Amino acid sequence: MEERLTVEDVERAALELLSPDALAYMTGGAGAERTLRWNREAFSNRRLRPRVLVDVSSVSTETTVLGQPVSLPVLVAPTASQLLFHPERELATARAVAEAGTVFCLSTVATASPAEVAAAAPDGLRWFQLYVFRDRGITEAILAQALESGFSAIVLTADLPVVGIRDAERRVEWTLADETMPAYLEARARGAEFDDPLGFIDASLDWAYLEDLCSRLSVPVLLKGVLTREDAALACEHGAAGVVVSNHGGRQLDGVVASLDALPEVVEAVDGRAEVYLDGGVRRGSDVVAALALGARAVLVGRAVLYGLALDGEAGVRHVLELFRAETENALALLGCASPADVTRAHIS
Amino acid sequence: MEERLTVEDVERAALELLSPDALAYMTGGAGAERTLRWNREAFSNRRLRPRVLVDVSSVSTETTVLGQPVSLPVLVAPTASQLLFHPERELATARAVAEAGTVFCLSTVATASPAEVAAAAPDGLRWFQLYVFRDRGITEAILAQALESGFSAIVLTADLPVVGIRDAERRVEWTLADETMPAYLEARARGAEFDDPLGFIDASLDWAYLEDLCSRLSVPVLLKGVLTREDAALACEHGAAGVVVSNHGGRQLDGVVASLDALPEVVEAVDGRAEVYLDGGVRRGSDVVAALALGARAVLVGRAVLYGLALDGEAGVRHVLELFRAETENALALLGCASPADVTRAHIS
Amino acid sequence: MEERLTVEDVERAALELLSPDALAYMTGGAGAERTLRWNREAFSNRRLRPRVLVDVSSVSTETTVLGQPVSLPVLVAPTASQLLFHPERELATARAVAEAGTVFCLSTVATASPAEVAAAAPDGLRWFQLYVFRDRGITEAILAQALESGFSAIVLTADLPVVGIRDAERRVEWTLADETMPAYLEARARGAEFDDPLGFIDASLDWAYLEDLCSRLSVPVLLKGVLTREDAALACEHGAAGVVVSNHGGRQLDGVVASLDALPEVVEAVDGRAEVYLDGGVRRGSDVVAALALGARAVLVGRAVLYGLALDGEAGVRHVLELFRAETENALALLGCASPADVTRAHIS
Amino acid sequence: MEERLTVEDVERAALELLSPDALAYMTGGAGAERTLRWNREAFSNRRLRPRVLVDVSSVSTETTVLGQPVSLPVLVAPTASQLLFHPERELATARAVAEAGTVFCLSTVATASPAEVAAAAPDGLRWFQLYVFRDRGITEAILAQALESGFSAIVLTADLPVVGIRDAERRVEWTLADETMPAYLEARARGAEFDDPLGFIDASLDWAYLEDLCSRLSVPVLLKGVLTREDAALACEHGAAGVVVSNHGGRQLDGVVASLDALPEVVEAVDGRAEVYLDGGVRRGSDVVAALALGARAVLVGRAVLYGLALDGEAGVRHVLELFRAETENALALLGCASPADVTRAHIS
Repeated sequence: MEERLTVEDVERAALELLSPDALAYMTGGAGAERTLRWNREAFSNRRLRPRVLVDVSSVSTETTVLGQPVSLPVLVAPTASQLLFHPERELATARAVAEAGTVFCLSTVATASPAEVAAAAPDGLRWFQLYVFRDRGITEAILAQALESGFSAIVLTADLPVVGIRDAERRVEWTLADETMPAYLEARARGAEFDDPLGFIDASLDWAYLEDLCSRLSVPVLLKGVLTREDAALACEHGAAGVVVSNHGGRQLDGVVASLDALPEVVEAVDGRAEVYLDGGVRRGSDVVAALALGARAVLVGRAVLYGLALDGEAGVRHVLELFRAETENALALLGCASPADVTRAHIS
Repeated sequence: MEERLTVEDVERAALELLSPDALAYMTGGAGAERTLRWNREAFSNRRLRPRVLVDVSSVSTETTVLGQPVSLPVLVAPTASQLLFHPERELATARAVAEAGTVFCLSTVATASPAEVAAAAPDGLRWFQLYVFRDRGITEAILAQALESGFSAIVLTADLPVVGIRDAERRVEWTLADETMPAYLEARARGAEFDDPLGFIDASLDWAYLEDLCSRLSVPVLLKGVLTREDAALACEHGAAGVVVSNHGGRQLDGVVASLDALPEVVEAVDGRAEVYLDGGVRRGSDVVAALALGARAVLVGRAVLYGLALDGEAGVRHVLELFRAETENALALLGCASPADVTRAHIS
Repeated sequence: MEERLTVEDVERAALELLSPDALAYMTGGAGAERTLRWNREAFSNRRLRPRVLVDVSSVSTETTVLGQPVSLPVLVAPTASQLLFHPERELATARAVAEAGTVFCLSTVATASPAEVAAAAPDGLRWFQLYVFRDRGITEAILAQALESGFSAIVLTADLPVVGIRDAERRVEWTLADETMPAYLEARARGAEFDDPLGFIDASLDWAYLEDLCSRLSVPVLLKGVLTREDAALACEHGAAGVVVSNHGGRQLDGVVASLDALPEVVEAVDGRAEVYLDGGVRRGSDVVAALALGARAVLVGRAVLYGLALDGEAGVRHVLELFRAETENALALLGCASPADVTRAHIS
Repeated sequence: MEERLTVEDVERAALELLSPDALAYMTGGAGAERTLRWNREAFSNRRLRPRVLVDVSSVSTETTVLGQPVSLPVLVAPTASQLLFHPERELATARAVAEAGTVFCLSTVATASPAEVAAAAPDGLRWFQLYVFRDRGITEAILAQALESGFSAIVLTADLPVVGIRDAERRVEWTLADETMPAYLEARARGAEFDDPLGFIDASLDWAYLEDLCSRLSVPVLLKGVLTREDAALACEHGAAGVVVSNHGGRQLDGVVASLDALPEVVEAVDGRAEVYLDGGVRRGSDVVAALALGARAVLVGRAVLYGLALDGEAGVRHVLELFRAETENALALLGCASPADVTRAHIS
């Protein structure tokens, strides 16, 4: 692995290993894949403004998220079905993330249960991504499992009332449903009949649901999939502790704004009432500091971690996280910042 | 056809089948084909702004055009000589459009008469596109046939006082004139001598003509080919029930503004006095919602439908319309809109 | 020639015929050829705004330049050494231009004398482009010849105090100097010693020279090579009857603004006090109307005419001018203008 | 060498000669090399505005830097380890620069000592680039050597508290450290243990250091690596005689603004209190005048000089400087400027 110097190196190597199904799932986006492309390009439309003659002899990438310390402002985004990429699936990822000292976010449509993840990395920070099914009983059961297993925040995904049209996935006729997926088994056990759990998501979800969830849970709730100032404000008003600026990795509605381009208006609308996160297109430490400069507390990385997982399991994920850590530390120092907290809006234009 | 997942798939397949003449006619534009290209690119210069936590459990693509219900905000644009693409010509298209529940717009220079189209799809909504010839007797005869055959709106084309310079067509020395074209036969029967009906169009047409047409017809008149706020206002003042923002598919004056880029100023100038439509560059459901967000009541698709027709006749057209329906429904849901009426200017930037 | 439907067609055919020297001279620009490229691209950065329902049943491309009627708003720019392209050299061009009813501008460094040009096309409108040599006696002699031969305007070139650095020309070690050039013979007859007449140009020329020239000549003087509002205003103040917005076809200082991009500020500064012309990048009728819309009285074409000359002598030049005429007529009609005079600033954005 | 008409020609020829190590070092940038690319592109985003009818019969490229006359506004930037490119290393460069009459800036991590450089080109203007090591004793010793050897200015590099992540260099596992490097030998002699001198740089440097350095040295101090108005103002306040707008040739933090794009805000903030220099992307005389127009007193060129050195030693460097001189003279004349002092902000947009 010594020659894989960047996430792009890891990506190239991983893409050679993957099955057509996994490849379609991992690399594809919705429609003409414009948003997928814009997510990356948005970082190239910004310019970092580095400050010099700042004492950066001691740089730390540490920060806090929802009040808890993490070793770097890069969290691991929820992604489905990690068994598709490595036999040790989410457990390998969770262990690597715990060792790296950051947050692992488990997907509702994972191939490991909350309890398994907790057992695999008992000391790791873990959040749970929530899809709400039309049969609320299934949802409540899954949610209860996550909370019992020590997941310390719920990340409610808002941008998938229906599934986006992803040509690459359709061409390989790939679906998520699988007996390896605890949510699927849970649903079947409760009598639900479906081929694809994503097709069973409740498209009627509204702000009242978020408000109810926030008020009845003892853990903070983040709303994921926010791209507008309007929704950012509503999220705060209905009790969200954070919002994740995201377009689902360009996998839902093609043509929507890139995550980084939506970040400034979201940060302005939130106005300090909640924490703001971003996913979409992050591949380098310079991307991380760009998001911080525009107001993100931290970023989440999805595909990059899966590349590492596919290539080398737990060690692969650790390698990717170490690349992010080293590059973020370097970028902070060269930006004239001794820590993520020192990065300001003036560091980017 | 199960593997043709997008209009682009249909296009690629169709282009392999076509004769050089048909290819030149279908794919070419005027001059250096800048406007042709800009029509597509304009959609990539916009950013959709999706709203979340809206109840989209029941999404409908239905809307009304000129007061009449259609199943989706995608109408079929007038295109010449469909016999060039399929032996069942406009009749196949009209039947498919009627089944899909939207509007078929028949061209003056079609290879089927208004009466034939009415007979082929008696229950279908049909509009008639009008070119005005220098010999007004021909025009009146054609217009009378359309009205007698139940065409419920007249779409007066304003952007072809003379024919654009289309290199691809000139290289294959293709002309429209043909005994298969009822308008040509009508003209000849009335003693007119011409090789190409487009060369016989009345270049002296002015706003008085539109006003007269609007006042004497009992059906609404739309003005097609409007690209400026000035002409949009004049169209309203002279009685048009609607305007179609169009540059004739990039086939008239190269260098003119893309349809989508002209849409906002037209919508602003019309200011609710008429309905605004758009054609040019629409290939995806995300394009449809982009046009709606900028103020279009519906879009018209020309080339996309011809691709389907060329490939598989009536079934091919149905497939294309079904793609638009499914993609538009998906895009509406992901935009947080339960119907076309819910799409607003705030959904795009 | 029937298959050469556009100037680009003529260009492609001509480029296959030319010697390396002629090729370097005709196609090359200064430096990295950015300005050369921008001259073309500038037309693609504008959007024409066509008006409809205007009576264009009778469109004329006629206009006047310096008070004299021309058949189209496309004049022929001065270019050096046409013998390099065709044995009938400037005489072929002058004849073709006279037949087309527009202006031929003879270069100081032509390979035909003013008298020869006048004899070849006695009824043609002709302007004389003036380079001022350090030995003013040579200049005055050349100028006197031009005026005696009925040249009705002097076009003083201001943007060549020194010759630009043109890599393509340097690689073929091409220079203008030649015994076929009357100006060279004139200079030698007067005892001047130089290898390249361009190297003998007076770099000390200033506004006083222009003012003196304007006051003592009985014909109007145009200043060619103006790219800024400042110089446009000075040209008017010092007596110029017109300015030619030009960067010498991208052959002088690479990195200077494209002609079309400089046009609006020049037109604004001139404010009707003089006529404004443009050369640089004009290849299509749509380019011609774009320049008119931004305030040019007419455009000058250089390379396009040389392509025609190289390919087919006088007939080749006529073909190119006929392409411009037909395309300009078409563009005017489709813009909703019955003549160049109808084109306004509102026809472009 | 007669066929190498441009710096790009020299570059192409040099790149064919270099070892993989030298190639990686010379051509590579940090990260995804966006800033490296933007440095060049920034020049293409500007437009020169040439003035005409200015007397440019006598153009001089001479100017002064820090009060001392130079023959052209192009200085030679500090670059490490020139032994990698030619056996005569910095001595060849220094000699060529002295002959050309401009400034040679010696790097702290050069492969020649200040004394050797002074001996090689005793009459040449020479500045010394300073890296400050954690062991200040080493730094002071090096600084003393430079001052004793007649280096007339100190250029303190501020943008390398840590080394940027340069993939190309990492792939060849290249490091600077070498017994051929006087600074390395000096450090070792003082008991310092390090593999790479850049890894030994003091990352705690702050504005107090600059202020102290300025106050205790009898020669002027320039601060190199400034990209923001904030740091430009601080540099003036802390005593710098000049600032060098630079991103270290795109080799430090990828994603930072291009040098030319940062220049205007730096010039505005400095407001005449210090001289402003620029490096990054300069390859042509038109680039030089662009930087002057935006307020630079002169530019520094690094890679261009190394290409010449690699190709032909001292003669190669002279050739490159002569190209810059000739091109700058030509660009000045064509811009309507008789000297660098005549170039103003109005000459560019």
